[in-house]
Amino acid sequence: MRLDQIGELALLDWIRKKAGDGGSGNKRPLLGIGDDAAAFKLAAGKTALASSDMMVEGVHFDLAYFTPYQLGFKIVSVNASDIYAMGGVPLMAFFSLAAPPDTKAVFIKKMFEGVFDALALYGARLSGGDLTASPPGVKKGLVLDMCVIGEAGRIVKRRGAKAGDGVYVTGPLGDSACGLALLREIARPVALESGGLRPGGVVRLRRGTLRWDVIRPLVARHLMPVAKRPPGLAVPTAMLDISDGLLLDVSRLCKESGVGVKIYEDRIPVSAQMRQAAPALGLDPLELAKSGGEDYELLYTARRKDGGEKGGILIGEVIPSGRYMVDALGKMKRFKAEGYKHF
Amino acid sequence: MRLDQIGELALLDWIRKKAGDGGSGNKRPLLGIGDDAAAFKLAAGKTALASSDMMVEGVHFDLAYFTPYQLGFKIVSVNASDIYAMGGVPLMAFFSLAAPPDTKAVFIKKMFEGVFDALALYGARLSGGDLTASPPGVKKGLVLDMCVIGEAGRIVKRRGAKAGDGVYVTGPLGDSACGLALLREIARPVALESGGLRPGGVVRLRRGTLRWDVIRPLVARHLMPVAKRPPGLAVPTAMLDISDGLLLDVSRLCKESGVGVKIYEDRIPVSAQMRQAAPALGLDPLELAKSGGEDYELLYTARRKDGGEKGGILIGEVIPSGRYMVDALGKMKRFKAEGYKHF
Repeated sequence: MRLDQIGELALLDWIRKKAGDGGSGNKRPLLGIGDDAAAFKLAAGKTALASSDMMVEGVHFDLAYFTPYQLGFKIVSVNASDIYAMGGVPLMAFFSLAAPPDTKAVFIKKMFEGVFDALALYGARLSGGDLTASPPGVKKGLVLDMCVIGEAGRIVKRRGAKAGDGVYVTGPLGDSACGLALLREIARPVALESGGLRPGGVVRLRRGTLRWDVIRPLVARHLMPVAKRPPGLAVPTAMLDISDGLLLDVSRLCKESGVGVKIYEDRIPVSAQMRQAAPALGLDPLELAKSGGEDYELLYTARRKDGGEKGGILIGEVIPSGRYMVDALGKMKRFKAEGYKHF
Repeated sequence: MRLDQIGELALLDWIRKKAGDGGSGNKRPLLGIGDDAAAFKLAAGKTALASSDMMVEGVHFDLAYFTPYQLGFKIVSVNASDIYAMGGVPLMAFFSLAAPPDTKAVFIKKMFEGVFDALALYGARLSGGDLTASPPGVKKGLVLDMCVIGEAGRIVKRRGAKAGDGVYVTGPLGDSACGLALLREIARPVALESGGLRPGGVVRLRRGTLRWDVIRPLVARHLMPVAKRPPGLAVPTAMLDISDGLLLDVSRLCKESGVGVKIYEDRIPVSAQMRQAAPALGLDPLELAKSGGEDYELLYTARRKDGGEKGGILIGEVIPSGRYMVDALGKMKRFKAEGYKHF
């Protein structure tokens, strides 16, 4: 059945029923889908947070290697990550989708299953949105937009880093960009959510073969990233999520905080899998780790004595001004913000 | 300058600056655009409300007769209307836009000016969003999505109407659908925001001419609808906004409330302008008033003694079950929900 055959109302009924329990255990909405607006209370004394992100076919993703389930999962993670990056927790999501009228209903349902599974992971609930036809006359016309609302006790801004603070990240960088490069070679969807490639198998690439257990975490990071919660033990002075690459995102933190930074190149965490896969693609692991986007690890600053190390990996320190990369020999070199531009 | 020439960052800086003051006088955001998420507090004891709506080129609008300013204005009104329809007030808006890379920067700026002016009208503030390229290979590729967050003391749901309640609307119906039909004949933008057609002029249509002062409020209702605030004196038992036409929306209210309705055909308010313009288009004013969408008037039920009349126009009454239209001769006829389908 195609969307124009099953009809919008039947699909909306299905979504509304699925959203009703959602499996997240989140009982916060006073009123969910089905009225003009969703209604909810904040916990006493909490601050509300909200953020939105759009994903466009042919710009942010390609159905040559994305399953609809993964798209649904990813747009939730991308938005949840923004809420975690403020020190909050996501509560409610509003999901708007434009799809070509000949899209199969099962495709849309798979996408919503990805949305529901990711929301359950973060304890949030689908509370509204919109469903419409794409601009006519386009073959690759999927447009996903999500707004996530959350709440926080103490919010952590991009502004707040002070000279002397340590600079930390919550995990290895560059995996997502390396995963994307792999997917472009593989050129077909990897259905991780239903088993995907066989665990024992290998994948043939132009420059050699890679084992599936090397590839899996890299493509998973690109297809189904999981948003990181802030480290429990550290008290970040400033924080953001790495969506556009370390160099660009650390530059944003510096700009907002009015500080500079020194990053120690050999401290930037790189996964064993990425170190193995990148050369097979003709790519430099360190470059991927410095400029590759969409890892959705958190980047934060904290006073060294506050135990930032316990939740993150120290990669540098905040200095009064200037942005420098320090190589393994101790040589300092200025760097510029480099990242992804949509236009 | 085109978007791909001016660059995303320059445009985002302009938007961020404009959003900073916004002119709405709304000081609620603790943190606006520029961090991972916006942050804000709710007033003590209030319930949060949120809703989102998407507008797609070639599906919801045509640039043959919409200016970018009007699109920006309209998407705010459409969303603000959902918040008012719950008895709340809008506070913050998150606006995501996909546009073809060759879109002129001045076009995007005009659109945001429409957004800012409408937000100022409703006392709300732009607090976030996303800006990206449209799906490639499409000429008419604008996709606008907005999520508006508001707050309310007592929320008014679609559920709550009781047999015996009066059924009220806040203003004339069908103007927007009639305005759309006019715009399809006129087939060019009517720049209401900068004067538009001359006050004394006439417009030639296939079936005759109409004076500009007749046409103006009708096309304005379609291009730049203004969301209605709930009537101050009435205490609605149930409420929604009329976005998909009276018959469909009153049916939704009935379904959620588990009641029926009698609508008195000759009480449905029709503007003098619409009564004059519809025949010139070969259309029946009453049909437009019953099934035309996008008026963004409020439809509510209230106990007769609670003075619903003071803020709205009585058009019928709630009955235990069944949906009936009563004509001028008192003859009752069942009606079905009829409205717009996107697929």
